[in-house]
Amino acid sequence: MKRLSLIGIGPGGPEYLTLQAIEAMRRVDVFFMLEKEGRGKEELLEARRSILNRYLKPEQFRVVTASSPPRSTTEGYRQDVAAWHAEKRRLFIELFERELAEGQCGAFLIWGDPALYDQTVSLISAIVAAAPDRYTLEVIPGITAVQALAAEHRIPLNRVGEAISITTGRQMAQCDPSSLNNAFVMLDGEETFRRFGGQDMDIYWGAYLGTDDQLLIAGALDEVEDELLRTRRCARERKGWIMDTYLLRRRSRDD
Amino acid sequence: MKRLSLIGIGPGGPEYLTLQAIEAMRRVDVFFMLEKEGRGKEELLEARRSILNRYLKPEQFRVVTASSPPRSTTEGYRQDVAAWHAEKRRLFIELFERELAEGQCGAFLIWGDPALYDQTVSLISAIVAAAPDRYTLEVIPGITAVQALAAEHRIPLNRVGEAISITTGRQMAQCDPSSLNNAFVMLDGEETFRRFGGQDMDIYWGAYLGTDDQLLIAGALDEVEDELLRTRRCARERKGWIMDTYLLRRRSRDD
Repeated sequence: MKRLSLIGIGPGGPEYLTLQAIEAMRRVDVFFMLEKEGRGKEELLEARRSILNRYLKPEQFRVVTASSPPRSTTEGYRQDVAAWHAEKRRLFIELFERELAEGQCGAFLIWGDPALYDQTVSLISAIVAAAPDRYTLEVIPGITAVQALAAEHRIPLNRVGEAISITTGRQMAQCDPSSLNNAFVMLDGEETFRRFGGQDMDIYWGAYLGTDDQLLIAGALDEVEDELLRTRRCARERKGWIMDTYLLRRRSRDD
Repeated sequence: MKRLSLIGIGPGGPEYLTLQAIEAMRRVDVFFMLEKEGRGKEELLEARRSILNRYLKPEQFRVVTASSPPRSTTEGYRQDVAAWHAEKRRLFIELFERELAEGQCGAFLIWGDPALYDQTVSLISAIVAAAPDRYTLEVIPGITAVQALAAEHRIPLNRVGEAISITTGRQMAQCDPSSLNNAFVMLDGEETFRRFGGQDMDIYWGAYLGTDDQLLIAGALDEVEDELLRTRRCARERKGWIMDTYLLRRRSRDD
């Protein structure tokens, strides 16, 4: 049997790791790191290496890097994702077969939580389900950017009795702005919050959460929108990439 | 100035704490514990004490317990909650004034994450906003039961491109069952999942997550419902209380 582990490492700084994650890291023989172009590739690889070096001794583990297959954009979103996932599963199996000896443990460090907007868990679950006598899988949860955002702004995810919605920029671009009351938005590269002006909305925004570069802005969307756009574009220019998330919340009579 | 800290401690076992939470605990002079009747009061108090004893020396901190004011059920849900919150704010201020010396730090340990279905953060934020020269507040995120559930079942919170909804038993009792595609349900004491039979739904259920008593059941709702009801009632009987959560997910053509 070969053991596989998906370890959530939180949104940035090593202080977000749980003790469970650190203990899981200490049982790992090989850390797989998939390099992806764009979005701060070097900086993100370096941040993961520094987490390893902080908690483990160099002789305890190996790091194996591989190029993440690119996602083509030819057949439409769902078909492209399906083809990309098939490609990734093939790559994972190849890595597990080549790099892990019998009884060894291979792991991926996942930003935030492996369950939130990261499909590595479903890809590897499928591999394990197809060969249950060959692989085992454990998943270790981690703090998400959503939680870091709420903590830094000192707000609850929901008001009394309210449901919580976590969604993507892609979905926000299509929804009816008047239907939205309380939504966390991730993976929005297009500043989709601009669609929600004049709606009596508050925004709580954060970028590079949990790192030394962290930025926070909160207030009535109509009042802070210009400052937010300026800050966001300026930061992206300076660092060459940005990762941000925000909560949009409609004001209610109780607020 | 008096420093206030809300520290998320995860769903159960001490291994779910982050290093940030442990460091925050080490800066605390007084831990406030509000005793609430029902739902495993003694066991939950004891679990928090054992987390303190695991990470701190006894001479480093004091524990102050107080009775949590009861919520009356006379005026309707929203009014009752508003009155209850006003009562809690008065109690918090009384505790901070009486138990904390100038410069000291008082903290609450919050199960899961302070931002998720716990209004302590909004109550204390309101106290701090009313007296910003008297109090400061920090919030430390923690792993939620939602995340522990997904990790233990090795599933993602969302399928490709899908939004995530986190809601309550109260809301599930009122919604149109056919409108629901992917929802995490918390605070459901009424087995509301029974409303969703015959709908081609999968359920991923867990109770006492992250503790030695953890229970997990997953499968097609129509197939596992009887086993789930039996297991749930039996566990509640045996322990005298239950805390559980589940994901309901409509099957799609891709599954």
